[in-house]
Amino acid sequence: MLSRMTTSAEPVGFIGLGRMGQPMARNLLKRGFSLIVHNRSRTAVEVLAELGAETAEMPAEVARRARTLITMLPDGPDVEQVFAAERGVFSALEPGTLLIDMSTIAPATTRVLAARAAEAGATLLDAPVSGGEIGAVDATLSIMVGGDRHAFDRARPLFEAMGNPERIRYLGPSGAGQICKACNQLVIGGTLAAVGEAFALARKAGVDPAVVREALLGGFAASRVLDVHGERVLAGRFTPGFRTALFAKDLRIATDALGASGVPAPVTALVQQLVTTLIASGGGDEDYSSLGTLASRLAGLPT
Amino acid sequence: MLSRMTTSAEPVGFIGLGRMGQPMARNLLKRGFSLIVHNRSRTAVEVLAELGAETAEMPAEVARRARTLITMLPDGPDVEQVFAAERGVFSALEPGTLLIDMSTIAPATTRVLAARAAEAGATLLDAPVSGGEIGAVDATLSIMVGGDRHAFDRARPLFEAMGNPERIRYLGPSGAGQICKACNQLVIGGTLAAVGEAFALARKAGVDPAVVREALLGGFAASRVLDVHGERVLAGRFTPGFRTALFAKDLRIATDALGASGVPAPVTALVQQLVTTLIASGGGDEDYSSLGTLASRLAGLPT
Repeated sequence: MLSRMTTSAEPVGFIGLGRMGQPMARNLLKRGFSLIVHNRSRTAVEVLAELGAETAEMPAEVARRARTLITMLPDGPDVEQVFAAERGVFSALEPGTLLIDMSTIAPATTRVLAARAAEAGATLLDAPVSGGEIGAVDATLSIMVGGDRHAFDRARPLFEAMGNPERIRYLGPSGAGQICKACNQLVIGGTLAAVGEAFALARKAGVDPAVVREALLGGFAASRVLDVHGERVLAGRFTPGFRTALFAKDLRIATDALGASGVPAPVTALVQQLVTTLIASGGGDEDYSSLGTLASRLAGLPT
Repeated sequence: MLSRMTTSAEPVGFIGLGRMGQPMARNLLKRGFSLIVHNRSRTAVEVLAELGAETAEMPAEVARRARTLITMLPDGPDVEQVFAAERGVFSALEPGTLLIDMSTIAPATTRVLAARAAEAGATLLDAPVSGGEIGAVDATLSIMVGGDRHAFDRARPLFEAMGNPERIRYLGPSGAGQICKACNQLVIGGTLAAVGEAFALARKAGVDPAVVREALLGGFAASRVLDVHGERVLAGRFTPGFRTALFAKDLRIATDALGASGVPAPVTALVQQLVTTLIASGGGDEDYSSLGTLASRLAGLPT
C-alpha cells in the first residue's frame, strides 16, 4: 500500500526511542518510511541515524519538519513535557499535522492534549499498544486507537508497519484507545493475580501446578495469561519484557479512570495493591508476570 | 475400546441424575454401559429407566449390585449423605468396588471418604468436571482426577464416554482432582470479575464494550471467559447453564482449601464476596456469567 507519507519529502517524526519505541521506529524504516527521530538520551538516536533516520535536537524541531509525528513515551508527564514544554511539539505545531501518541497514558490527559492540538488546527490520535517488546520487535503489536476516524484511516499504513493488521482497531473518539488499553491491563492483572493464587494452592496441596496449568488450559479457565505468563511463572523467568513498575503505572491509570467514571472496581483496586506489594518487596524491575508468584511468596513457598 | 465394565453382567451404578448427572448417565448408556441408577426424586430415574437403565431405591442397593459406582451430586453434604447415611453406599460396600465421585466438593471431604472406602477394601477417585451442562450433554467435559493411578486407568473408558479424551487428566493422590477444580473455578472467578470491571469502565466512558471485547481477544487479555462469558454478559443472556449459587459453593470450597493451606488469596476472597453481593441482589438462580454485570450494576448502568 503506497502512501504519501512514504516519500522522503514528507518524513515521519518519532519521539521516544526506548525499549518499545526503538524497534517500532526500526520497523517504520524497514517499510520505507523516512524518519526524523528525537530522544532524550543520544545513544538510541545514533542507532537510528546509522539506519538512515534524520535526527532532531528538540521536539519542536521534529514538529517543524514533519507533518506526521509519533510519540512513544513511558508515562503521561513525559508526554506532557514533549508536547507542552518550552521547546515542545506545541511550540512549533503546523496546522494539518497528525500527532499519534502511542504511549499508555491517562485518557483524561489524552483528551486535554487533543483539544490543544485541535486549537492549533492539528489532530491527535491516542494509539496505545499491547504485545510488549516482542510485539514491537516482530511488528505484531495490537494497536487501540481513539480520535478522529479520518485521521485513523490516514495513519493506518504507519500502524500496519508496527502492528498486526488484524489487531489494529478504531475504538471511538479521543481517549477511547486509552480506555481500551486500561481495560486490557486490568483484565490481565485480575487474571494473573488469580492464576498466582491457583498455583500457590496447588503447590501447598502437593499438586503439580504445571499439570494444573495444562488441565485448566483445556477448559473455561483458559487464557493467554495462564498460557504465556503461567509458563514464565512456573519457569521463574522474569527478565523483562515489561517491567512491573510500568504495569503499576498502567493500573494507576485504570483505577484513576474507573474512579473518574464512578465505577466501583474492587478487583482492579486490589490488584493494584498487590502490584504495590510486589514492588515494595523489590520486584519493580522484574517482568510483570512475576505478579503470578506473589501468593506463593506470601505463603512462604519457594518460587 | 472394550472393557469388562461394558458387559451387562457388571453394571455401573450412577447416583445423582440432576442437570449434569442425567446427560452424563445418558452418554454412558449410549456407549453401551449398562446402568443401575438412583436419584432422590423419581422423575429423572424414570427417564433413565425408559432408556434401559435398571433402577435402585437406595444408594446401598446400588453399592450391592455394582462394582463400579459414579456419584454426581450438588455439594459435599449430599455426597456424605449418599455414602455415609444409614442405607448409604458404605453400608453395603463390597471390597474391590471402584467409587468415582464426580461432584465438586471440598478436597478434605474427599480424602476422608477415600480413607473410609479404603478401610472397606474399596477405592474412591475424586473426578470433578468442568464444561457445564453443554459439556455434559455433548460428552465434552474436562475431568480432573485424583486418587489411585490404577483406579484412574480402570475408570478411563467411563470418563471417555462422558468427557473429551484429551481433557481427562490424572492430577495426583486423593483430593488432587478437587484441588485442580478449585483452581479452575477461582481463575474463572477472578477473570470474570475483572472483565466485568473493564466492560463497566468502557460503557461509562462511552466506548462500546463489544468493540473492547474484540480488541482484547486479539491480545494478552484474551481468555475463554472474555470470549464465551463476555459475549453472554453483553447479550444479557443469563439462563443457566451453571447457577451462581453453585459457583458460590465452588468458591467457598476454594477459599476453604486456600485457608486450610495457609495461602493468602485476597483476589479469590474478594470474588467470593462479589458473588455473595450478586446473590444478595437476587442473582443466585441466573447463570454465573452474570458476575460480569456486577460492576456495571453497582455503577448504575443498565445491563
